[in-house]
Amino acid sequence: MSKFVDQPLSGFLDALARPEPTPGGGTAAAIAGAMGVSLLMMVSGLSKSRGGADAERVVLSEARAALASLRDRLAGLGDADAEAFNQVMAAYRLPKSTDQEKRARTDAIQQALKAATLAPLDTLRAAGEALRLGRVVAQHGNRSATSDVGVGIGLLEAAAKGAAANVRINLGSLRDEAFKASASADVEALQKQSGEDAVAANAALET
Amino acid sequence: MSKFVDQPLSGFLDALARPEPTPGGGTAAAIAGAMGVSLLMMVSGLSKSRGGADAERVVLSEARAALASLRDRLAGLGDADAEAFNQVMAAYRLPKSTDQEKRARTDAIQQALKAATLAPLDTLRAAGEALRLGRVVAQHGNRSATSDVGVGIGLLEAAAKGAAANVRINLGSLRDEAFKASASADVEALQKQSGEDAVAANAALET
Repeated sequence: MSKFVDQPLSGFLDALARPEPTPGGGTAAAIAGAMGVSLLMMVSGLSKSRGGADAERVVLSEARAALASLRDRLAGLGDADAEAFNQVMAAYRLPKSTDQEKRARTDAIQQALKAATLAPLDTLRAAGEALRLGRVVAQHGNRSATSDVGVGIGLLEAAAKGAAANVRINLGSLRDEAFKASASADVEALQKQSGEDAVAANAALET
Repeated sequence: MSKFVDQPLSGFLDALARPEPTPGGGTAAAIAGAMGVSLLMMVSGLSKSRGGADAERVVLSEARAALASLRDRLAGLGDADAEAFNQVMAAYRLPKSTDQEKRARTDAIQQALKAATLAPLDTLRAAGEALRLGRVVAQHGNRSATSDVGVGIGLLEAAAKGAAANVRINLGSLRDEAFKASASADVEALQKQSGEDAVAANAALET
């Protein structure tokens, strides 16, 4: 495992910029999501809440704990996405001289593509859960941190959009129709929900 | 200077998540922009271009060189933004017992707020220049990397939007009307242009 989060940030940027397939957009989306979550954690951890009530602090503390676990999940998905795509490329490189080799290669490619679809789908799911918590932070977080929440939501929206695009691209090469239909339905529902949560969070910031 | 890019990525995420004002949304926007630029660099560095013509490779190589310098600029702006905001907070902590102290403090706050406005304005400008180059990469880059370009553009849009929000918030506390009018006009023009470039880049990806 590459463990991108253990690298210096400059090394991670260099890895993204290298003309090699991984790490690519799927990893960048997951890490951008982790950055967005971190900003929401910051605001949910401020000693002052929007209204100052104790109940509000309890809600924010709960949000912060849930966000912390989403952040770890997204950071891990940055690795999982690159690893899954490396497996797809390895499968494409399998020998294809005999009919038996061809069948084995096709199966391996299809299997690897499923994993490469599930990684960004999970990134989309995690970004969606974070955007749901973003509504809570936008509603109850200290007003002085409004722009931090706004940037956090924007990064999570970019993460969700990028992850969804990666799911859809891999679905295009898959043959298992039941898997495709299920993943397609998931990505659509998750995008709809996260879009609504982002709109609601931004609206809460402006009230 | 904090040099966020020298830190492990996990340490940067921890710094964003800490309930302290910096690093905050301004820094996250700049670093997300640097990630978006890195993805565009990756695609502009692939040996295969969209059409395969030599002229296309020349255009992409030029874009890659310009992107590399924008990436360094955005990485540095991540530090500059935090530093500028620290100065604002330091100015607010200045003594205000006498009239002379009050005047000195007000001047220091106004001065620091100007620097804290110029940092995100430069992030917006750099993200805008990168989105302009994103059109080139979207038009001429290898089709197999479409989703990488898409994520790159999405991150740069989030960076531009976040930077613009940070400029506007600081402008609200400034008193120098000429400075405010000029920065306001800049942020509006830059947001309009970068929005158009993002739309054009996404359209080029789909053709």
